[in-house]
Amino acid sequence: MHPKVKEVGEKIRSMEIRGAGRIARAAAEAIKMCALDYQGDLEGFRECLKEAKNYLISTRPTAVSLKNAIYYILMRTDVRSLEEAKRSAARAADEFIRNSEMALERIGKYGAERIPDGSTVMTHCNSSAALSAILTAHDQGKKIEVIATETRPWRQGYITAKVLAKEGIPVTLIVDSAVRHFMKEVDVVAVGADTIASNGAVINKIGTSQMALAAHEARVPFLVMAETYKFSPETVIGKLVVIEERSPKEIVDPEELPGVRIRNPVFDATPPEYVDAIVTEKGVISPYLAYEIIKEEFGAWIERWWK
Amino acid sequence: MHPKVKEVGEKIRSMEIRGAGRIARAAAEAIKMCALDYQGDLEGFRECLKEAKNYLISTRPTAVSLKNAIYYILMRTDVRSLEEAKRSAARAADEFIRNSEMALERIGKYGAERIPDGSTVMTHCNSSAALSAILTAHDQGKKIEVIATETRPWRQGYITAKVLAKEGIPVTLIVDSAVRHFMKEVDVVAVGADTIASNGAVINKIGTSQMALAAHEARVPFLVMAETYKFSPETVIGKLVVIEERSPKEIVDPEELPGVRIRNPVFDATPPEYVDAIVTEKGVISPYLAYEIIKEEFGAWIERWWK
Amino acid sequence: MHPKVKEVGEKIRSMEIRGAGRIARAAAEAIKMCALDYQGDLEGFRECLKEAKNYLISTRPTAVSLKNAIYYILMRTDVRSLEEAKRSAARAADEFIRNSEMALERIGKYGAERIPDGSTVMTHCNSSAALSAILTAHDQGKKIEVIATETRPWRQGYITAKVLAKEGIPVTLIVDSAVRHFMKEVDVVAVGADTIASNGAVINKIGTSQMALAAHEARVPFLVMAETYKFSPETVIGKLVVIEERSPKEIVDPEELPGVRIRNPVFDATPPEYVDAIVTEKGVISPYLAYEIIKEEFGAWIERWWK
Amino acid sequence: MHPKVKEVGEKIRSMEIRGAGRIARAAAEAIKMCALDYQGDLEGFRECLKEAKNYLISTRPTAVSLKNAIYYILMRTDVRSLEEAKRSAARAADEFIRNSEMALERIGKYGAERIPDGSTVMTHCNSSAALSAILTAHDQGKKIEVIATETRPWRQGYITAKVLAKEGIPVTLIVDSAVRHFMKEVDVVAVGADTIASNGAVINKIGTSQMALAAHEARVPFLVMAETYKFSPETVIGKLVVIEERSPKEIVDPEELPGVRIRNPVFDATPPEYVDAIVTEKGVISPYLAYEIIKEEFGAWIERWWK
Amino acid sequence: MHPKVKEVGEKIRSMEIRGAGRIARAAAEAIKMCALDYQGDLEGFRECLKEAKNYLISTRPTAVSLKNAIYYILMRTDVRSLEEAKRSAARAADEFIRNSEMALERIGKYGAERIPDGSTVMTHCNSSAALSAILTAHDQGKKIEVIATETRPWRQGYITAKVLAKEGIPVTLIVDSAVRHFMKEVDVVAVGADTIASNGAVINKIGTSQMALAAHEARVPFLVMAETYKFSPETVIGKLVVIEERSPKEIVDPEELPGVRIRNPVFDATPPEYVDAIVTEKGVISPYLAYEIIKEEFGAWIERWWK
Amino acid sequence: MHPKVKEVGEKIRSMEIRGAGRIARAAAEAIKMCALDYQGDLEGFRECLKEAKNYLISTRPTAVSLKNAIYYILMRTDVRSLEEAKRSAARAADEFIRNSEMALERIGKYGAERIPDGSTVMTHCNSSAALSAILTAHDQGKKIEVIATETRPWRQGYITAKVLAKEGIPVTLIVDSAVRHFMKEVDVVAVGADTIASNGAVINKIGTSQMALAAHEARVPFLVMAETYKFSPETVIGKLVVIEERSPKEIVDPEELPGVRIRNPVFDATPPEYVDAIVTEKGVISPYLAYEIIKEEFGAWIERWWK
Repeated sequence: MHPKVKEVGEKIRSMEIRGAGRIARAAAEAIKMCALDYQGDLEGFRECLKEAKNYLISTRPTAVSLKNAIYYILMRTDVRSLEEAKRSAARAADEFIRNSEMALERIGKYGAERIPDGSTVMTHCNSSAALSAILTAHDQGKKIEVIATETRPWRQGYITAKVLAKEGIPVTLIVDSAVRHFMKEVDVVAVGADTIASNGAVINKIGTSQMALAAHEARVPFLVMAETYKFSPETVIGKLVVIEERSPKEIVDPEELPGVRIRNPVFDATPPEYVDAIVTEKGVISPYLAYEIIKEEFGAWIERWWK
Repeated sequence: MHPKVKEVGEKIRSMEIRGAGRIARAAAEAIKMCALDYQGDLEGFRECLKEAKNYLISTRPTAVSLKNAIYYILMRTDVRSLEEAKRSAARAADEFIRNSEMALERIGKYGAERIPDGSTVMTHCNSSAALSAILTAHDQGKKIEVIATETRPWRQGYITAKVLAKEGIPVTLIVDSAVRHFMKEVDVVAVGADTIASNGAVINKIGTSQMALAAHEARVPFLVMAETYKFSPETVIGKLVVIEERSPKEIVDPEELPGVRIRNPVFDATPPEYVDAIVTEKGVISPYLAYEIIKEEFGAWIERWWK
Repeated sequence: MHPKVKEVGEKIRSMEIRGAGRIARAAAEAIKMCALDYQGDLEGFRECLKEAKNYLISTRPTAVSLKNAIYYILMRTDVRSLEEAKRSAARAADEFIRNSEMALERIGKYGAERIPDGSTVMTHCNSSAALSAILTAHDQGKKIEVIATETRPWRQGYITAKVLAKEGIPVTLIVDSAVRHFMKEVDVVAVGADTIASNGAVINKIGTSQMALAAHEARVPFLVMAETYKFSPETVIGKLVVIEERSPKEIVDPEELPGVRIRNPVFDATPPEYVDAIVTEKGVISPYLAYEIIKEEFGAWIERWWK
Repeated sequence: MHPKVKEVGEKIRSMEIRGAGRIARAAAEAIKMCALDYQGDLEGFRECLKEAKNYLISTRPTAVSLKNAIYYILMRTDVRSLEEAKRSAARAADEFIRNSEMALERIGKYGAERIPDGSTVMTHCNSSAALSAILTAHDQGKKIEVIATETRPWRQGYITAKVLAKEGIPVTLIVDSAVRHFMKEVDVVAVGADTIASNGAVINKIGTSQMALAAHEARVPFLVMAETYKFSPETVIGKLVVIEERSPKEIVDPEELPGVRIRNPVFDATPPEYVDAIVTEKGVISPYLAYEIIKEEFGAWIERWWK
Repeated sequence: MHPKVKEVGEKIRSMEIRGAGRIARAAAEAIKMCALDYQGDLEGFRECLKEAKNYLISTRPTAVSLKNAIYYILMRTDVRSLEEAKRSAARAADEFIRNSEMALERIGKYGAERIPDGSTVMTHCNSSAALSAILTAHDQGKKIEVIATETRPWRQGYITAKVLAKEGIPVTLIVDSAVRHFMKEVDVVAVGADTIASNGAVINKIGTSQMALAAHEARVPFLVMAETYKFSPETVIGKLVVIEERSPKEIVDPEELPGVRIRNPVFDATPPEYVDAIVTEKGVISPYLAYEIIKEEFGAWIERWWK
Repeated sequence: MHPKVKEVGEKIRSMEIRGAGRIARAAAEAIKMCALDYQGDLEGFRECLKEAKNYLISTRPTAVSLKNAIYYILMRTDVRSLEEAKRSAARAADEFIRNSEMALERIGKYGAERIPDGSTVMTHCNSSAALSAILTAHDQGKKIEVIATETRPWRQGYITAKVLAKEGIPVTLIVDSAVRHFMKEVDVVAVGADTIASNGAVINKIGTSQMALAAHEARVPFLVMAETYKFSPETVIGKLVVIEERSPKEIVDPEELPGVRIRNPVFDATPPEYVDAIVTEKGVISPYLAYEIIKEEFGAWIERWWK
């Protein structure tokens, strides 16, 4: 296997590379390298890419953005000649990466419009897309404040809080249990997404669904910021999104609590009725339109599955 | 001041003695000592008790159980003669302590009836009353499982988990963010209370209200276990329960997060519509009956305030 | 055992005597006979009544009204002398029966006030108390219509429909599945109750809770008509009401459906938030006041249990 | 008839005297005069009071406070001798008036506790009790703002706005349609009541129920301020509160809109689930406790009706 | 008229052929026969098909699938020459039938993904599409249980129960009133559909909407399995779906209940907010996307109506 | 500037021309005149139209229909030659006007289908589209009644009431506060819209959102009648719809209420979950499909913004 593929795969597996967007772009880059450096015949090229695909997907099998990135390239690889195949694969990889970056920027811009001047934003975990919107609103001169949750067990809220504090945005850190208590001071919630299912359900960091529930109870708008490559085409054909569950050690050393079972699911599912809008690079949509976005972006694959 | 009063006050202030029940009983014990050891005239006796009262209340001014314990004794102290005053104060203190212990036992028994065989119970923090019900149900031979939250920032959930594991009850520990995710596996929620307001609102450990909200959403019965001395007579005359806010250091060393404000409220308020029943030593009631319980238990004080 | 006790017990067991009110009154009558005909000493009298009590309760162990009727008498039996014991038991039995009849009449009167002229009432099964209100409203000259459910498996709705049709009240019969469909034509729902729990939950004929849910969804007032002897004192100390489950044969001959399990619970539990008011002979109350009614009616027993 | 009774009755009928409290106190005063000035025998005295009662009630037959005031006096009139009858009637009238004034003051005090410093209060129409709470909170030095509705057709909101502006409280006037739009800026709603029914429903100025609904939707606490003489004992026995409907001319000259029917109901009914608490002079209660308050205050009458 | 058309029409009218799918396929088959056997000129051919269309639709005028099947063929009949017309009509009929069968298979496959291993599925009536999903899940080796309702008045639940029992799937039969009572044991609800309206409302067997309501209350996913030919294009232009009402005799012999009106609506309407997803052969969609599906499938007709 | 443009602009600014539809058509007409009368070169033509566009938009900057009308024409103006430019601009203007009129007619027709015979319709303010549906239903011979709100501060409800009364439709006028009170007599609500946002939110006359809330509470279908040119393309890229706030004098002369702030927002936002369907000239859709409608109608502009 190409060393870049190997390296990227290892880093994804070990969480050195993490976050739906970063994983996707790193995989695209690896596939590109793999394609450009290939020496051999066309048949071998196809095998080689297939191997890279399978390997990379195996390093984080539940990551939708990873699959979407790789298939984006493979679907656009023109295998009529080796030269064209290499060129088209590289072009598609570059395109995916560029699109993904542009998407982040656009989501920031559209999302910032939804954060009124003088408002308090609550966020969870450490989402690039949600931060993009908050920082853009701040850059536009809006006076905003942020409430960030600690986000146990990894405490990614500390990263979020530091980034915001550095930019001069007043930020308050709270424990995850205090979400409903502080909801009455919040004007809008902005979170990211790991995966969007075809019926509009949002899979994101554990705790997102109860933040959405508390926002809904208090009628605070709940916005999800998500690039279209986070929409899952497989959910169209009924697949349920698998919720990754990780080691209990991330919470506490199990030896401290003998006889106690510790469970550590990483994500949870927020039903679409608690999501006011999803901000994508294609505009602000109702979550109920997820199927349409998937059809537009991934329709070709789905039709292939149907055959 | 009597050294016992001093000592107990110090321990309450420093959190060495904590938990609504333990605080109340310790204060009652201290007042009793103070009364029995008193040397002097009747006038001085009254002064002495008043001083003890004021000092003890000052050590945790928002703790309703503390106030209720002390006033329970003072209301029953017959000051017609010194001897009678000492005797009646001691008797009232003993009575309060005994009642409080019997209450815990009865709540355990009544609450256990509400935990069906084969069920999974979710609990939060480390409540004696909720544990009493769970352990009683276990002792009755019911096969039950418990899901306990970590309860940041203090992680009292670890204590709860250990106690249950020791008794052989299967217990699963989760982070506070995972409450809604696991709610679908829960048959009944059982938590304690710090204070019950006259309109039925339940003030308890931060995170209780979002657990109640998630239980309500999923139609899982949400039970609060609370002795009647946790009902707040002052709320009858409109007083709002003050939510104690403690040092940010309990969450994280603020120097790690320069420029970030950290907020650490200890309790939150659960509205009565999310509470299916309150289990008291006087029986299982609707939260909406809180005013009646208060009138019955503390009517004499309230009438005094009205004059 | 007294032949009357035996006879009544048999009829209750075989469902010849059924309906919470009829069972209660029959049992009271039997106890009265048993007491009046007793020959022997006082000790034997107590044994005899105890035996009758245990036997009668065993014929329908989940029927609250049965227990309440019997204990009503026993609590009022003055055992200081045999003569007084016989007299007081008979008097209490008569009193219970008379009260129960007066209660039905009063509930009819109060309930009728809640049925406006020109309205359509939906009812379920065949409740004497609900019928009492409907017929009283009709007798007052109000023009009302009734929608009655079939009430599978026993189809008691046919009896209800016949009674109403005979009185000249326009009545429409529907299958149980059509409740929500017709709810938009309904102005008020009136049903009976088998048992009221201390937190206000209403246990009544299977199907009641989904009728309440559909009424709640459409904001149609949902009224429960219930004599106070249907309130369960045991629920105050945490007991859950046991839902009786009867033979599958009442639904279909199981041999017709080999390999299919058939379940036939007789009652279900309606949460208090779906009940707008309970009409009792003591007035129209919120369901959340159930504990108060129980305390008032059965306080003496509960206090005995607490000792 | 006594000229005072005549005069007061006329003023009530013509709306010169209006507002539940003012009506009640004026009627009490008239009954007192009528009693004190009476010349004749005891039998005539009873007739005279009965006549006054019937006449006064007829001037505003749906006003609960009017009936409650009159019956308060009649129930306390000791007719064993003429002298005692006159004295006791006058005493009861004075007592009623004094209680009613004290009630207003206490409700102001308890209600003010529920208005936090820095909060924005929404109110409807022109309620003495709600104003008492707002003004008391202001007098306590709390910085509060008020949003007052216009309250068509009479525009009593203008009176409310003027009273508040005069006291230096920032007040914003909005049209009745804008209630939900502004709800997101509101911290607490405080309104009065005309009548409280035994199941906790609140009858108040038309528009109250949709303000309660919008508050409930946004989880803004909705407080009703009501003296206990506004609780309706007749609702205990099933009577529905009659919603007064007044002349269309109060809205617009019907000749301007030929062929258009104009309806002008004065009150509407707010269900108890939208009311967070009722502030009475007996304390802050859940609306579900209305029956208890009625039993306590008017139990004697109800028992009489039952006989 | 062609004898096949006559025969199929008769069978549809008499309910010998029933179920949305079977009706549609039978009608397609009849139209095909009618076209192939036609002798005459082109003009006559068109008349002949039109007559067949009108006759068939008249046999069950509210059946959307029937209309959709017939129009599917007519829209694809190329009337430029008789030969081509016959061929294209036959081809379109075959295509419709084949598509409809493939749709059932695909819905089974996608729907099965939504039935997790170890889960309990509730279903209503006897839906081919819902059964397809349940049986596919079973064939995949998942251990599932089913709760089937009796489905009065026809008791189609017995057929469902027998089919499942035969396949070795544990199945429990309950009366329609017991739906809410058993909902707490259910993991997912799967039902079919008769018609889907353009705003996402689901018209299906009477009782479906209250099952959806109870599922929604308990947060149990409610899945509708529906082929796209069940989506109603006429609802796009505002037509309301007509709810068929059938003979009272299906419930009970009216002579048994003299004076009682018996109503027997066959379907009811479930609002889209209670439907978590519709599983179609085009994938799993939110009900709110119904309009898009209709536009895609039937856009040509709608545009024709607009002209 | 062209005098017609000037004149129309003035009339829009002064509210002489008002209502989303009339504004849009008047602006289209003005642009058409401006184009046809133009004398000069092509470059000047473009400048001239741009100037007209900017001027017209400035007269009511928050009116979406105004912008949509103007851009509709500009996007279709073929500037390859002056002649073609004039011709195409005029043609597009005519087309817009014709479409807008046809849209009103179609919405009337589709909307009328949703108003069943014998039903009572509630409406707010004075919407051409809602009236079109009501009058069409009436013309179809349906017996309907209407409840119209006064609609403070302008009382446009009087116009609505007059129009309906003139047509012989029974109409009842109520104050805005009475909406919830009368909702129980209503079968369907039909209102217009000023703007539809991309996530389905409906911006319409102040008071619409609380009417929607009350309809939702009572499960009364809430229908919005809106031409597609009222859908806002800018909301796709995150823009929030600006709620116009007008002079307090429209409510009351501020001098009458010294010290009182008067706020007069003209519109409010109704969340999509309270809207059962939007009736457009393209059919009856779920509000959640707004983004799809916008993409179809205005996709070209949005793509331009994305570049």
